[in-house]
Amino acid sequence: MAADPNHAEMEKVNRLFETSVIAGRDFGAVAQVYTANARILPPGADMLTGLDHIRAFWEQAVSGLSIQSLNLSTLDVRVSGDTAIEVGRAEMHTNQPTSPTALKYVVFWKREDDGWKWDVDIWNADSEARQ
Amino acid sequence: MAADPNHAEMEKVNRLFETSVIAGRDFGAVAQVYTANARILPPGADMLTGLDHIRAFWEQAVSGLSIQSLNLSTLDVRVSGDTAIEVGRAEMHTNQPTSPTALKYVVFWKREDDGWKWDVDIWNADSEARQ
Repeated sequence: MAADPNHAEMEKVNRLFETSVIAGRDFGAVAQVYTANARILPPGADMLTGLDHIRAFWEQAVSGLSIQSLNLSTLDVRVSGDTAIEVGRAEMHTNQPTSPTALKYVVFWKREDDGWKWDVDIWNADSEARQ
Repeated sequence: MAADPNHAEMEKVNRLFETSVIAGRDFGAVAQVYTANARILPPGADMLTGLDHIRAFWEQAVSGLSIQSLNLSTLDVRVSGDTAIEVGRAEMHTNQPTSPTALKYVVFWKREDDGWKWDVDIWNADSEARQ
């Protein structure tokens, strides 16, 4: 994540997800993170498409799993025109005994008129315990 | 997956994975599917990098889970220059009582001198039972 301005913009989106959507429980902010037709591929659940389903998913996940924070660490981003692929690790903190949970993810980014957003988001857990 | 010749080439790679690597237990064929520095992000395990680790992973997974077949169904592929992103579903058949297992995946493709290959491969299961 060097001096490329795209990377700085993407970092802002990732921080917004962590602080607003997850820690801040502002689930409407998913519209600033995901494209309108984005897809999420959560472990242990069906693929979901579109902001309404994505918002409902995160609302339910945050309360259902009692997620306190979800911290994203980008390993690398490769930009190709108006799209990019990011590979990263995440750490999820909950009030469960298994916390924190180590996760890894791949995000396919699209640059839209109002900036870079997540268009495909897939993740899984490093341990078999709880995805 | 229309008339784009890239898509036809990618289909061949996916069929090779199914028939040679998984059903045929020809684990050396991972070199025809993955790039030399490819990464796989398996659920319930750490990220692995490079053909040696990927070959060992699939060898262990096929015998450990008694995988008989793993069928990939591409939902869509977006090509951007020498890279592409694929979203798909997979069905894994084993001799376990939970078989078949419904999976979903994202593959980041790179076009190399000898053709299209998987550079990043991540997946998870639709149900919480067994990833």
